[in-house]
Amino acid sequence: MISPPIEAEPRGYTLPLSPSGRSAMVTPPPWHFSGEVVMVDCRVDPDAAARFLPPELTLGPDPGAAAAVFAEWQWCSDGGAELADPVQCQFAEFLILVACEYRGRSLARCPYAWVDQPVPLVRGWIQGMPKQFGAVHQIRPVRSGRAGPRLEPGGRFDAALSVYGRRVVEATVTLEGQVAEPPFLHTVPLVHTRLFPAWVPAEEPQSRLVVSEVSDIEFSDVWAGRADLRFVDVHDPDLATLAPVEVGAGYVFSYAETLHHGRPLESA
Amino acid sequence: MISPPIEAEPRGYTLPLSPSGRSAMVTPPPWHFSGEVVMVDCRVDPDAAARFLPPELTLGPDPGAAAAVFAEWQWCSDGGAELADPVQCQFAEFLILVACEYRGRSLARCPYAWVDQPVPLVRGWIQGMPKQFGAVHQIRPVRSGRAGPRLEPGGRFDAALSVYGRRVVEATVTLEGQVAEPPFLHTVPLVHTRLFPAWVPAEEPQSRLVVSEVSDIEFSDVWAGRADLRFVDVHDPDLATLAPVEVGAGYVFSYAETLHHGRPLESA
Amino acid sequence: MISPPIEAEPRGYTLPLSPSGRSAMVTPPPWHFSGEVVMVDCRVDPDAAARFLPPELTLGPDPGAAAAVFAEWQWCSDGGAELADPVQCQFAEFLILVACEYRGRSLARCPYAWVDQPVPLVRGWIQGMPKQFGAVHQIRPVRSGRAGPRLEPGGRFDAALSVYGRRVVEATVTLEGQVAEPPFLHTVPLVHTRLFPAWVPAEEPQSRLVVSEVSDIEFSDVWAGRADLRFVDVHDPDLATLAPVEVGAGYVFSYAETLHHGRPLESA
Amino acid sequence: MISPPIEAEPRGYTLPLSPSGRSAMVTPPPWHFSGEVVMVDCRVDPDAAARFLPPELTLGPDPGAAAAVFAEWQWCSDGGAELADPVQCQFAEFLILVACEYRGRSLARCPYAWVDQPVPLVRGWIQGMPKQFGAVHQIRPVRSGRAGPRLEPGGRFDAALSVYGRRVVEATVTLEGQVAEPPFLHTVPLVHTRLFPAWVPAEEPQSRLVVSEVSDIEFSDVWAGRADLRFVDVHDPDLATLAPVEVGAGYVFSYAETLHHGRPLESA
Repeated sequence: MISPPIEAEPRGYTLPLSPSGRSAMVTPPPWHFSGEVVMVDCRVDPDAAARFLPPELTLGPDPGAAAAVFAEWQWCSDGGAELADPVQCQFAEFLILVACEYRGRSLARCPYAWVDQPVPLVRGWIQGMPKQFGAVHQIRPVRSGRAGPRLEPGGRFDAALSVYGRRVVEATVTLEGQVAEPPFLHTVPLVHTRLFPAWVPAEEPQSRLVVSEVSDIEFSDVWAGRADLRFVDVHDPDLATLAPVEVGAGYVFSYAETLHHGRPLESA
Repeated sequence: MISPPIEAEPRGYTLPLSPSGRSAMVTPPPWHFSGEVVMVDCRVDPDAAARFLPPELTLGPDPGAAAAVFAEWQWCSDGGAELADPVQCQFAEFLILVACEYRGRSLARCPYAWVDQPVPLVRGWIQGMPKQFGAVHQIRPVRSGRAGPRLEPGGRFDAALSVYGRRVVEATVTLEGQVAEPPFLHTVPLVHTRLFPAWVPAEEPQSRLVVSEVSDIEFSDVWAGRADLRFVDVHDPDLATLAPVEVGAGYVFSYAETLHHGRPLESA
Repeated sequence: MISPPIEAEPRGYTLPLSPSGRSAMVTPPPWHFSGEVVMVDCRVDPDAAARFLPPELTLGPDPGAAAAVFAEWQWCSDGGAELADPVQCQFAEFLILVACEYRGRSLARCPYAWVDQPVPLVRGWIQGMPKQFGAVHQIRPVRSGRAGPRLEPGGRFDAALSVYGRRVVEATVTLEGQVAEPPFLHTVPLVHTRLFPAWVPAEEPQSRLVVSEVSDIEFSDVWAGRADLRFVDVHDPDLATLAPVEVGAGYVFSYAETLHHGRPLESA
Repeated sequence: MISPPIEAEPRGYTLPLSPSGRSAMVTPPPWHFSGEVVMVDCRVDPDAAARFLPPELTLGPDPGAAAAVFAEWQWCSDGGAELADPVQCQFAEFLILVACEYRGRSLARCPYAWVDQPVPLVRGWIQGMPKQFGAVHQIRPVRSGRAGPRLEPGGRFDAALSVYGRRVVEATVTLEGQVAEPPFLHTVPLVHTRLFPAWVPAEEPQSRLVVSEVSDIEFSDVWAGRADLRFVDVHDPDLATLAPVEVGAGYVFSYAETLHHGRPLESA
């Protein structure tokens, strides 16, 4: 019997490694995302926000500017194969975003994120996005009947995050009209800390600030209105420091992007 | 101490009964539904279909006509209160429908149904709709980006039902164009067997054929195309007899209705 | 072609009716249950408790006596077939029990119950038990290692109920020693209101008080200790009236029973 | 205002980084595990097994020896805090193990693993364990009643893995008696590929073979018997190559360990 050739070494963009590489839980980038977003601008305590920033970043000209972002996504790899199985290509997400700056460039920092599917969770960690697992739900606009809002003035969109069976965050957006520009914190690049924790004794954890590079950004019409944002049953004392001290406008829109890779912060 | 007045008896449209009646799991009708539907016409063995009909019903002029219906719903009671909590007002559903007839009137019989939330399940049983629990997923059309189909020719919509961790049914619809009429089996009334199982010895089960009465029916534009429908890992031998022997057109549309009550079949 | 014989009418103990009857979601009784229980005695406001009792029942000699019961069950029908699929034969449950009396006989009333599987939910409704859907978790004793308590003094057992992503109830029991008798409210029959809601106009809902009849009751050794019981994020105002005003002993034990049918209260 | 001191930089063993470090999804090791195991020895095609091994490892003296391991775990960090919330400290797991060897030392390779909770999933990836998300269920022995097996001859233990709503693997173990030794593949160290995927262009993925170091291993009595192991609805063609070609004995036992860190394979 001939030994398997060297290229038979198990492989994959991520674990699990396998002979063909097809078992990898996460496909290699790029990844395409199309989603429906319910977002609320808010203000958090600037000191609290600052404590979530690595020393390379500053709060920038609007300290404490932040946002809560709910989204229902579909995603696929370049070939689009995942779209043939709705069980695999859908997830819901909740993010907290904090405005920050690097050498005068506006960025957003995501101190907390939750998704309801494991592939986006692991994919987030590859990027440095601190995704945890939660139950994320948001109202969908309807095209027929009375069981939901329309994309029109008065349309009400509620969203909620639960973690470990606790209701953590709730948001309500009531539409007033369309606006010309998408909300600022959804337009700036995200800067993440890509972290490889230590495991082998004497090994140091690896950590690097990276900015996500995306293309093919699309916004639908952006609806805006008044909003509410509530921290409900929060047990993590660090998360609690980011409770909104002021709630701004709310937004409902659809959004798409293609995510390619990360750039080191200093070269981004 | 004065005894509680007689109206303090615990009450509710359903269990749990409570002092105010507000604990009832199911609110009294009417209920409003707005949903996105992926539906596939098919043909099943007419003898198999007949064995699912009570003696009052016949197969009608098109024996074996059937359909598989996936839907993602939002619902609310008359006041709309449920829409304030997206965790409570959304569910997904999969139905099998079989064409039948009562004294010359076209009806649909639903031998099997699955939903992914408990309130619709119990509400179904009140109506005589045999809802069980399953994981139901369907592709959503997107307004932005590449991670999903558009409502246009070539748009592909997949849907899947899993029960107890087994993939049971899968469907694929590829749009070709709009059609003037919604699919027939989604336009005829449903006839259910409202059943109250026996529990006290010597007590007979109660059973009555009822037709659901709905109003405020709305269809969006109806897209149609070619379809596939697959029974995958079916363990219930009775369900297996309804595997499609021929697959017809597929449809994607939004739909709304208000469900009021049932009428006895003989007076409906 | 010969018409199908009359016995071919679709049948089943419950919906879905099918040619063989095997599709029924719930098998006919008896049902066998084996479970691990974490239970806390408590006292609720007697007036609040009274408002949950139908007029036929009184609070009895110890008004306001109540209990919170967490249990992890396995169940099967007489043939035991369900035990071959662990996905189908396991569920977790949380009950509130209130002491009551009928003509001098001690009974327990269950105003609220939650389970995490659909079959026990529907089976509960057949009996008149007001089961809703929730996430129910409890610590398991361990036989090896440090990641859990032993059944010995100092062993700590926590349990939690979440509903719609809200933490509703939490309990903690810390064992002190074995006791000779199981907790009283787990030894008296349950009296339920078997309710068939109205659906057809002019039809009245049907309602009857029934007492569950069980046999083959088994208790393991019963461990007892001090306990805590907390209502956390309760949104149902009727449920809130049953918040404990005093917390008694806690118990950990295993329990089994066979449930046969119900008897009308007046003949039970 | 005084700048926050340098130690205020956000920190944590893993993401999310936060001011106190307490938001980290995964606590630093050591981690303590106590679990109930249902395990089946089997044989897979040696060529297929070999293709899952990195070049440093060989199949060893018993090529194709493998096992399927179901386990229900509780876990905690050193302080044991997680045991106060049963929602956080429990998970179920399914592993495939393949016998292998490094310089004459017997090891086990885990080409595939699934868990039903996100923290064990991420914790697995830190170690190089390729954990994916699945629904894992196994029968529990009972102390009372008929709804489950006893740890005695004839006791039957079924277990099942579902992934994305597909039943993937099922096992059945029927006890015959106790054995003196635990199953071999549960006694040898696991060798994993700790992988940090590439994300920044021109960056190479990092990959290192590490052996998990555990202490405080405890086995209960080990029951053994005849077994069955079935691959049911497998869509990953690489996984399919590991379908059992021969099924050996089955085992039921409880097991505990403390997991400390990894050692590079060459120094382990």
